[in-house]
Amino acid sequence: MVRATAELVRTKGVSATGLREVVAVAKAPRGSLQHYFPDGKDQLVAEALTWMGQVAVRRVEKVLASLDDRRPSSLLAGTVELWRSEFVSTGYGGGCPLLAAAADVAATDDELRSVIGAAFDGWLRSFSAALAHTGIPPQRAESLATVVISALEGAIVLARIHRDVAPLEAIARELGPLLDSAVASAGDAFEH
Amino acid sequence: MVRATAELVRTKGVSATGLREVVAVAKAPRGSLQHYFPDGKDQLVAEALTWMGQVAVRRVEKVLASLDDRRPSSLLAGTVELWRSEFVSTGYGGGCPLLAAAADVAATDDELRSVIGAAFDGWLRSFSAALAHTGIPPQRAESLATVVISALEGAIVLARIHRDVAPLEAIARELGPLLDSAVASAGDAFEH
Repeated sequence: MVRATAELVRTKGVSATGLREVVAVAKAPRGSLQHYFPDGKDQLVAEALTWMGQVAVRRVEKVLASLDDRRPSSLLAGTVELWRSEFVSTGYGGGCPLLAAAADVAATDDELRSVIGAAFDGWLRSFSAALAHTGIPPQRAESLATVVISALEGAIVLARIHRDVAPLEAIARELGPLLDSAVASAGDAFEH
Repeated sequence: MVRATAELVRTKGVSATGLREVVAVAKAPRGSLQHYFPDGKDQLVAEALTWMGQVAVRRVEKVLASLDDRRPSSLLAGTVELWRSEFVSTGYGGGCPLLAAAADVAATDDELRSVIGAAFDGWLRSFSAALAHTGIPPQRAESLATVVISALEGAIVLARIHRDVAPLEAIARELGPLLDSAVASAGDAFEH
C-alpha cells in the first residue's frame, strides 16, 4: 500500500489520491488499510514519502558505486539517466512524489511538509556527500547539490509536460562541466 | 476569478482548488462563474495558467529592462530576487502555479497539459531571448534557459518546503558564473 500510494502521488498529487484507489492498486484486502494505517491518508502518504526519500538516497549510492570514473559530471549523468531511461521505457506518467506532494501540501499541512523536508534533506545530504567523494570541497558540494536537485526536479516537470527528455539532457550537458570545474585542484587541497 | 484561481492553484494545486472557494476568494457574485466560464473548472484553470504564463514573460522583460549592466548573471539575480523578496515579504504560501498544475495533471489531463506546456514555452522563449540579449549565442541560450527555469522551479519547491530562501540563493550564486562564461567572446562572434 505504501508503494501504491507513492505511485499515485507521483502521478497525480496528494489531493487526488484516494484511499479506495490505493487499496485497489495495491490489491490489498479491505480493512487492511485501517489495520496498518489507523491514522488514515496522512499517515500513509507520510510513510510513502519517507520511503521514496530512502529510495532516492539508495539511488545516489548505486550511481556512485557504478561510475567508471570519479568525475562529478559522470555522477550527474548517471543520475539524470535513471529518469531519462524511465521516461523513455515506461512513459511520462509519474514524476517525483516529493515534488508532487510539496506542490499540494507545502502551504496547508505542516506535518507532511516536515516529512517532505526530511526526505529532501536526506537526498541532498547523500548527493552532496557523493559530490564530495568525486573531489568537490564539502561546502561547495552542498551548494551544488542544491542546484542539481533543484534543476533535476524542474526538468522532470518540464519533461512530463512536453513528453520529451530534452530538458533532462540539457541539465546533464550544461551542469556537468560546472560540477567538474568545482573539483579541488591539487593546489587547493592545502586550503581545504 | 482568474486571479483567485491562480492564487489557489499555486498554494495547493489544481485538485484541491474548488470552484466555491474561487468564487469566495474573488468575492464574485454567485452565478458569475457559470456566466463567464460555462465549461467550469478546467476552463477557469486553463485561463489562470495562460495568464500566469503571460505574467512570467512580462517579468522577464521587466527584469531585463531594469538591469544596470548586461551580464546574464544580473538577469538571473534579478529573476531570483523576485521570488526571494516575495517569500521574505509575504511568506511561503504560494509557489509557481505552472509547476503546481503540472504535478497534478501532467498525466491525467491532456488539455491542461498542453496549456501548461504553452505557458512554460512562452516563458522559456522569453528568458532565452533575454539571455541572447546579454550576449549568449542563441542555441546555447535556449539550453541554458531550460536549466535556469528548471533550477528556479526546483528551488522554489525546496524554499517552500524549508521556508528558507537559501535554495534560491544557491541557484543565483552557482549558475551566475556559468551563464557569464557562456557569453560569446569577440573571437566567437565570427563563428555565430
